[in-house]
Amino acid sequence: TFRAEFLELHPYDQTQIFLAQNKNERMLIYTYLSPEEMAEILENIDLDELDPILTEMDARYASQVLGEMSTDDAVDVLNTLDQNEVASFLTIMEKEDAEDIKGLLHYEEKTAGSIMTTEFIAIEATMSIRESMLHLRKEAPDAETIYYVYVVNEDKKLVGVISLRDLIISEEDWTVADVMSDRIVSVSVGEDQEGAAKMMRDYDLLALPVVDFQQHLLGIITVDDIMDVIDEEASEDYSKLAAVSGMEKPDTSAWIAAKKRLPWLIILLFLGMLTASLIGRFEKALEQVPLLAVFIPLIAGMAGNTGTQALAVAVRGIATGESKNDGQVRILMREALTGLITGISCGVVITIVIYLWQGEFYLGMLVGLSILGSLVVATIAGSFIPILMHKLHVDPAVASGPFITSINDIISILIYFGMATIFMDLLIS
Amino acid sequence: TFRAEFLELHPYDQTQIFLAQNKNERMLIYTYLSPEEMAEILENIDLDELDPILTEMDARYASQVLGEMSTDDAVDVLNTLDQNEVASFLTIMEKEDAEDIKGLLHYEEKTAGSIMTTEFIAIEATMSIRESMLHLRKEAPDAETIYYVYVVNEDKKLVGVISLRDLIISEEDWTVADVMSDRIVSVSVGEDQEGAAKMMRDYDLLALPVVDFQQHLLGIITVDDIMDVIDEEASEDYSKLAAVSGMEKPDTSAWIAAKKRLPWLIILLFLGMLTASLIGRFEKALEQVPLLAVFIPLIAGMAGNTGTQALAVAVRGIATGESKNDGQVRILMREALTGLITGISCGVVITIVIYLWQGEFYLGMLVGLSILGSLVVATIAGSFIPILMHKLHVDPAVASGPFITSINDIISILIYFGMATIFMDLLIS
Ligand SMILES: [Mg+2]
Ligand SMILES: [Mg+2]
Ligand SMILES: [Mg+2]
Ligand SMILES: [Mg+2]
Ligand SMILES: [Mg+2]
Ligand SMILES: [Mg+2]
Ligand SMILES: [Mg+2]
Ligand SMILES: [Mg+2]
Ligand SMILES: [Mg+2]
Ligand SMILES: [Mg+2]
Ligand SMILES: [Mg+2]
Ligand SMILES: [Mg+2]
Ligand SMILES: [Mg+2]
Repeated sequence: TFRAEFLELHPYDQTQIFLAQNKNERMLIYTYLSPEEMAEILENIDLDELDPILTEMDARYASQVLGEMSTDDAVDVLNTLDQNEVASFLTIMEKEDAEDIKGLLHYEEKTAGSIMTTEFIAIEATMSIRESMLHLRKEAPDAETIYYVYVVNEDKKLVGVISLRDLIISEEDWTVADVMSDRIVSVSVGEDQEGAAKMMRDYDLLALPVVDFQQHLLGIITVDDIMDVIDEEASEDYSKLAAVSGMEKPDTSAWIAAKKRLPWLIILLFLGMLTASLIGRFEKALEQVPLLAVFIPLIAGMAGNTGTQALAVAVRGIATGESKNDGQVRILMREALTGLITGISCGVVITIVIYLWQGEFYLGMLVGLSILGSLVVATIAGSFIPILMHKLHVDPAVASGPFITSINDIISILIYFGMATIFMDLLIS
Repeated sequence: TFRAEFLELHPYDQTQIFLAQNKNERMLIYTYLSPEEMAEILENIDLDELDPILTEMDARYASQVLGEMSTDDAVDVLNTLDQNEVASFLTIMEKEDAEDIKGLLHYEEKTAGSIMTTEFIAIEATMSIRESMLHLRKEAPDAETIYYVYVVNEDKKLVGVISLRDLIISEEDWTVADVMSDRIVSVSVGEDQEGAAKMMRDYDLLALPVVDFQQHLLGIITVDDIMDVIDEEASEDYSKLAAVSGMEKPDTSAWIAAKKRLPWLIILLFLGMLTASLIGRFEKALEQVPLLAVFIPLIAGMAGNTGTQALAVAVRGIATGESKNDGQVRILMREALTGLITGISCGVVITIVIYLWQGEFYLGMLVGLSILGSLVVATIAGSFIPILMHKLHVDPAVASGPFITSINDIISILIYFGMATIFMDLLIS
């Protein structure tokens, strides 16, 4: 039968098949599958595709499905709906599920609290291993993971952790206190999800306990969700470097893509107008030496490229937490020196090339020195701006490549035409 | 005592302390710690920092440490050394460890085989749950994970999988065949590590079995390593977008940073020279209308920005596997239309602005039309080039932002000056 064969599949594959159906077929699937079975499918659907699906379901069925989902996933789904919809779903839902979900709804987006689930297993240090295993077997069907069991004291504060690995190789009449590790790695509930991800990666954890400032155990974050966070944060930084706000899916329509990119492009257009008006101020120089115009894209382009390189290194260093506060001055110094080395190299190359190609020594010197100056300033700007933003608690990734490029266009043109004006006599002679 | 207190710490924290010591202190630590204890520390050190450490250790101690490491990590370490060093370490190593390592040394970098470990637990379908648990307890100390147990037939082919979760809630006298799932998600040994990562992320796995083309079980990939792969691949794409080959660490010296960035900058410098020589061909137009020069960075910049946006969307779509082959034509069509929409919008804005600001209607039209043309072509180029590279089995991420930007500089300048030359009469009048 369809039902039996379909349920043989892995939930992820069930989801792929489900998403390939049209509405009528989906309506049929809802009658075939229990809310629990449907919940597993929903957990694998991207949040931005969920809205029509929840709407077409019978409201009672939908609320049952939400109740059967992992609490963290149900919360994610509800966070995409408007307040009225959330309230109506919570009203028809089983009370216990609704309570669990309500407790998680108010955590701020992208914090540890927003990605944790409350379905963890907690035991007390005085229990025997035998009792713990019985408890664990009883709780297993509802728990998000049974591979870590958390030990709490009478105040529900986190005091230890045991892996199932340690539990099953322990003697049954030992106590939890004998076996547990009190070397606890935990994250506080308001911490950024990126910090939680870094912790799980560094310590190779399958789950990370989330605590409040008094060490009360509030929930756990599991590694399957952290894999998504690592990818999501990297995608975010990547798309910001390219000034695409919120990466588009391949099936986004052109209208939506254009709507997302236009704000950036319009800002950059006006920054470009600023550049144009700057060059306009040097019209006299341009009339005297029209050849000056020829090298504008070269100099602006090089400044943009080198600024983007410095930006990428700084943003990534901050994002991966590899650059601590004390390291940031070092990054700046390093970038300044890097700009000097690359600037001298490129400057010398271009001076020689222009001299050999055009026979113009002074023009070659001018372009070479402009590139040297632009590269030094652009490299420093590329690393200084994200570091400054980080200090001001702004996400450094919003200093996108095109933004830095536009800034560096302006800087490099000021340097180039400024020097051209000063040395105009040499150029004309 | 130092030893006892130090070993109380999490291995990751031990590593951080170890790395903060100078050579004399490290030499002392080697005498304090057993090879097994040292192995855990080494597993957390970045590969590029390992060389001096292995060199300063006594060779026999070092080979014992390597033997105690997880096989996959030991292989990674050995892959950073030259062949003679590898051979000499393998000779002094315990024979069994050496064999394990040799079996993994020949897998190509960044394939599933290169990140797998052979320390998995395999059982037969005919075993009882009781026997399986005994086997599992016995193998636990050496296994990379005990949370998935793989079921193989007499030919060592993978036929099923059981999670420890299912094992501990099963009756002891059931057989493995009763409980195991034959819904196996596996990856073939030559598959790209990015594909393995996508699979583990989609199916929410803690470990992924690696098989040859006949379904023989060769090893497993564990989620802690996949977290690193996800991050590493994202960093790679990110740094390529910014044309920084191989992301630098915050503590890289300026000389090394400059050495890594210079090749790119020199290539871009020559692409810039090409742009310059192109503009040089339009010197006559520039002499007639010097104001033309003013808008060069604006037009080239907009083309570069929009090209980078399209590039980022295409590269990310390919990397995350979201864009299947049949979707790529759709992406191209979408980008063309997006370029048209954004081009018309920006073109209209700039025409109006230039008209209001300079009172020049024809110049405004020229710049507006150039931006329209540039944006359409740049957007198509930005998505076509990575898709083409992907088809040619070249990593699309090497089409970096600055590279696309330089290409688009050239295209946009041809469009701008080409149109200026054609409509020169209108501009002069
Ligand atoms: Mg999930
Ligand atoms: Mg529930
Ligand atoms: Mg959430
Ligand atoms: Mg964040
Ligand atoms: Mg790790
Ligand atoms: Mg979850
Ligand atoms: Mg971030
Ligand atoms: Mg590891
Ligand atoms: Mg070994
Ligand atoms: Mg490896
Ligand atoms: Mg997943
Ligand atoms: Mg490993
Ligand atoms: Mg890649």
